[in-house]
Amino acid sequence: MPPTMFQTRAPWMLSRRSGGFKPSVIRDLLRCNDAPEMISMAGGLPAPHGFPVDALAAAADRIFTREGAAALQYGPSDGYAPLRAAIAQRLPWAVDPNQVLITTGSQQGLDLLGKVLIDSGSRVLVESPTYPGALQAFAPMEPSVYSVPFDDQGVVPDALAALRGTGGDKARLLYVQPTFQNPTGRTLGEDRRTRLVEQAAALHIPLVEDDPYGELWLEAPPPLALTARNPEGCVYMGSFSKVLAPGLRVGFIVAPKPVYSRLLLAKQAADLHTPGMCQRLVYELLSNGTLDSHIPTIRALYRHQRDTMVAALNRHLAPLGAQWQTPQGGLFMWVQLPPGMHAANLLPLALARNVAFVPGTAFEATEPCTRMLRLSYATATPDQIDTGIAALAQAMQACRSGRQKIHDETTGGSTARLMEAVPGVEM
Amino acid sequence: MPPTMFQTRAPWMLSRRSGGFKPSVIRDLLRCNDAPEMISMAGGLPAPHGFPVDALAAAADRIFTREGAAALQYGPSDGYAPLRAAIAQRLPWAVDPNQVLITTGSQQGLDLLGKVLIDSGSRVLVESPTYPGALQAFAPMEPSVYSVPFDDQGVVPDALAALRGTGGDKARLLYVQPTFQNPTGRTLGEDRRTRLVEQAAALHIPLVEDDPYGELWLEAPPPLALTARNPEGCVYMGSFSKVLAPGLRVGFIVAPKPVYSRLLLAKQAADLHTPGMCQRLVYELLSNGTLDSHIPTIRALYRHQRDTMVAALNRHLAPLGAQWQTPQGGLFMWVQLPPGMHAANLLPLALARNVAFVPGTAFEATEPCTRMLRLSYATATPDQIDTGIAALAQAMQACRSGRQKIHDETTGGSTARLMEAVPGVEM
Repeated sequence: MPPTMFQTRAPWMLSRRSGGFKPSVIRDLLRCNDAPEMISMAGGLPAPHGFPVDALAAAADRIFTREGAAALQYGPSDGYAPLRAAIAQRLPWAVDPNQVLITTGSQQGLDLLGKVLIDSGSRVLVESPTYPGALQAFAPMEPSVYSVPFDDQGVVPDALAALRGTGGDKARLLYVQPTFQNPTGRTLGEDRRTRLVEQAAALHIPLVEDDPYGELWLEAPPPLALTARNPEGCVYMGSFSKVLAPGLRVGFIVAPKPVYSRLLLAKQAADLHTPGMCQRLVYELLSNGTLDSHIPTIRALYRHQRDTMVAALNRHLAPLGAQWQTPQGGLFMWVQLPPGMHAANLLPLALARNVAFVPGTAFEATEPCTRMLRLSYATATPDQIDTGIAALAQAMQACRSGRQKIHDETTGGSTARLMEAVPGVEM
Repeated sequence: MPPTMFQTRAPWMLSRRSGGFKPSVIRDLLRCNDAPEMISMAGGLPAPHGFPVDALAAAADRIFTREGAAALQYGPSDGYAPLRAAIAQRLPWAVDPNQVLITTGSQQGLDLLGKVLIDSGSRVLVESPTYPGALQAFAPMEPSVYSVPFDDQGVVPDALAALRGTGGDKARLLYVQPTFQNPTGRTLGEDRRTRLVEQAAALHIPLVEDDPYGELWLEAPPPLALTARNPEGCVYMGSFSKVLAPGLRVGFIVAPKPVYSRLLLAKQAADLHTPGMCQRLVYELLSNGTLDSHIPTIRALYRHQRDTMVAALNRHLAPLGAQWQTPQGGLFMWVQLPPGMHAANLLPLALARNVAFVPGTAFEATEPCTRMLRLSYATATPDQIDTGIAALAQAMQACRSGRQKIHDETTGGSTARLMEAVPGVEM
């Protein structure tokens, strides 16, 4: 029967909730990577030259030989039991393997936590700026998002008490990346961690601690996780994307019992389970010591790339009035442009010079970040980083001289509209 | 700092929506498979002896050698482009690769469709009985679920018009498995397909066509998919779980453009993308012809196992008054117990005899299925099937003679409560 038989008006009525779904500027910018000349400092893509490809290939071969059918069959929703046990054992506080839920990347952990903790209109607290993927994951649950007080050291715990009586103490959760935060690279110090956990407990605000970068310290190990200080009041999210390989999509949640049981039901409903082969690959590298010997090489790689970027910033961008803090780990630098220069205006000029970054507005929760941009030192090689930062400096000079013209052509504040006008960058 | 410093009352306030999450009886029964003596006819687990382990191992080796870093890196949210193109080409109607979204199993497709199409209280139409995973996936979006008129040939299209004026024609979607339905094994015939598509279009009800079993026909190919008959009014969901291997978690959605763009945003937020290695493994077997030569061997395997089960049912269960229709494909038989016998009462007696099935109540949408049970002929070997059905007959005899006693000990209707009392079967 030909479709033309129907007097179809399109029957689809899309959900109100989906009207709030926003595209990821970062993932859209990742498409820049397809252009071979483009130097991307946009996405948080781990260095592909840092993937232990040979070790994973050998592990895959062993798994297919030893337990191919099991790895290819449906598996339990909570995850591959040996992997759950190995993760529990690896964490530096007492964790029962029955508290460990394997997720399809830690992005899925955010989706599951949203389903279990957020109702329509529920108050959710975040840092500002924050990881936009968290806001994307929570969006279908239609929360009301508020930011917590912060300064350049991160969340200000003693200011949390000021939320009392404002409804802030009825928040369903406070989402926080205390270690090498995306996008700022900031790490919450020991004292603030102590106070944050105390204050959150006093206000009965559950903490959702997202920690994908904690093992990527470049100077010294970061302070102990928030969750270690009050396991019953926190959920901890971890990932193998940054230390092993993101394409495996293996992350995990550590959750207290009442939350765990609901998360498990949400996980069943979301995708039944994380692929068995991916889980076993991670387990192999965890259990045979490969991961532990691999992480220091990754740290050395990123330390070199960060140092290269800092040197290039000092050489090329400091003279133009840009400012930054040097991160002690993770993948990102958070750079402030000189007064009057907007990252959204700079982006097309940078793309035209084959260098990509993410404008700070992509990370805005409640406070504007128009003058900020995020640079990743993870993906590009040291040579590319140097070339890329020099090109960025040229773009800044062009932005200065052409500011008025650009401003006339755009809304100035809307990254989305601006990028639509840039060939090859789809929103 | 020791947790005891806090005067913690547990801070967690769980979402109202998560109160409606139900455990999967089927996945819980899968745990039975851990007991080596247990013959499981419960889960829809494909026969592990049917997995093309060697072909997949060889493909993994080629992928690691050729493009290991790319397979291990973050990938696009819509999926691996060659796989999307291969799927579009394989489907027997005109599909643009840009309409194909790769999902982490087709279970994730249900989750994404729920987010994009369902608001709290939205009317959703389903078959009764239906696949309970669909209800689980939709549950966080808090729909109001109604069943459509049906008989033993499946949905009755001409009765759909009767929904007009009752609010049924304002449904956000009708979820349907027209081919070898889980659990009934029923297939909608050509005439009913024509009429269903016509009626749904006339009533402006979008069809969500879930087709994980379509390639597992045992006698003759099923009629053309509903979606092929009105692509703008349908979403099609496919899966490689049953024809290749479920542990890879690779499924897909084919959707019209306005729905697709929202689905893609929901996919980004849900898990960024499906693991790159899993997608490439499927693509390898699709593109080198392995899948096409593999499917007939799977069909032959299941045909033999279905015939074995039908023969065993005739021999052991027919004399006890059980009834069934012989399915023409898929994995399942839907068996009716004699009057007065409840599957929930039978289950512990069967488990005690090392045979597992799923009580019909697990698939109830709106109509009670207390006398029904679902048997899978996919997982067990022919010898096990024969032994298992004989054991089931013994359980039925015990159920008959002990019915009063069992009834006293249980609520009779609650599978959940009954199974809690059975060691090794966790709810």
